[in-house]
Amino acid sequence: MRRRKKPGSVEKLLSFTDYLCIKPEENKGKWKEYFNTPQNIHVEFGTGRGQFITTLAAENPHINYIGIEIKEEVLLKAVQKAYEKALSNIVFLWFDINKIEEVFDKEELDRIYINFCDPWPKSRWDKRRLTHRNFLEKYNYILREKGEVHFKTDNEKLFEFSLNELSFSDFQLNNITFDLHNSGIKHLVTTEYEDKFSSMGMRIYRCEGKKRL
Amino acid sequence: MRRRKKPGSVEKLLSFTDYLCIKPEENKGKWKEYFNTPQNIHVEFGTGRGQFITTLAAENPHINYIGIEIKEEVLLKAVQKAYEKALSNIVFLWFDINKIEEVFDKEELDRIYINFCDPWPKSRWDKRRLTHRNFLEKYNYILREKGEVHFKTDNEKLFEFSLNELSFSDFQLNNITFDLHNSGIKHLVTTEYEDKFSSMGMRIYRCEGKKRL
Repeated sequence: MRRRKKPGSVEKLLSFTDYLCIKPEENKGKWKEYFNTPQNIHVEFGTGRGQFITTLAAENPHINYIGIEIKEEVLLKAVQKAYEKALSNIVFLWFDINKIEEVFDKEELDRIYINFCDPWPKSRWDKRRLTHRNFLEKYNYILREKGEVHFKTDNEKLFEFSLNELSFSDFQLNNITFDLHNSGIKHLVTTEYEDKFSSMGMRIYRCEGKKRL
Repeated sequence: MRRRKKPGSVEKLLSFTDYLCIKPEENKGKWKEYFNTPQNIHVEFGTGRGQFITTLAAENPHINYIGIEIKEEVLLKAVQKAYEKALSNIVFLWFDINKIEEVFDKEELDRIYINFCDPWPKSRWDKRRLTHRNFLEKYNYILREKGEVHFKTDNEKLFEFSLNELSFSDFQLNNITFDLHNSGIKHLVTTEYEDKFSSMGMRIYRCEGKKRL
């Protein structure tokens, strides 16, 4: 069965011309200049309804943010949040992460956030996981030296897989935690999904991977 | 209360002159020549009753093994196992891991096994954990280039701590598994403690850390 789409959401999405970049490929290698202020760029892959990235953008005006999402209905929610908060350091791309190298050039990004991506649980699907080594090779290319991947999931098997893949792909692992919401960390910026599942008592796993020299 | 010692175990231990090295400091830098055949050296820190290391030694005659244990009563069991199996590629040290640098010289070892070490759960005890960065600095020194630390525990918090410490100390993590006995790995060499707790349904966590160039 095809996913039933809410009528009009594409049109609505496209109307937010200040927050949606329609042809991101044209900015490849030029993202620094795209924003009002040229500063470090943090990107979220699979930005969903946008609570996470719009909160960060509001809290960190000295950083520019790019949220990428393929599902137009949830992306619309994210774009609306940025609009309501009148943020000037964020833009969204309606785009497929599989083709990320068409949008970003070598060492163009400072940080990549991956939050609660699809775990693709069957082993024959491992190449679709956003932390598979094939993806990490692309991230390594578009991240600057010492750039970071910040990863969160509620799926333990995906977390185990991701630690191995990050380490294999020569990212240095930092701040590995098996239970983020009981780790004593005070200020947590969360996603909508995270709030829901954490409040149900599910564990959130998190780690950072730093690109080596 | 002092630990009650079984009378006579020290005397018995010391009688196994072929399997116990009494003054290990005197072999510092010369362990390769200590064995009948000069070959790679794998060491177990906290060798306990010796099931793990004597099984490995029997299966891998092309490797030399050193088991280190501070408790004489359990070490006696380990030594007896080696004697019963008539192993010629293993020796035991009745020694304290805290002073490991007095026994091994730079790049003298090929692999270190740490199995089910004391988790020292309180955070003020973290420096006593055998995977604390202060210990890992010593291991880094006595391991050869690309030498490995193989670590197993049933304590999740200790495992989380150890992954972070290994990564911080510039070991590349490999084969991280959160549930060794359900990971599909066929041939497992286990410790006595591991058999007991695994059969009770407790999870065994495992990882490897490889010393970088």
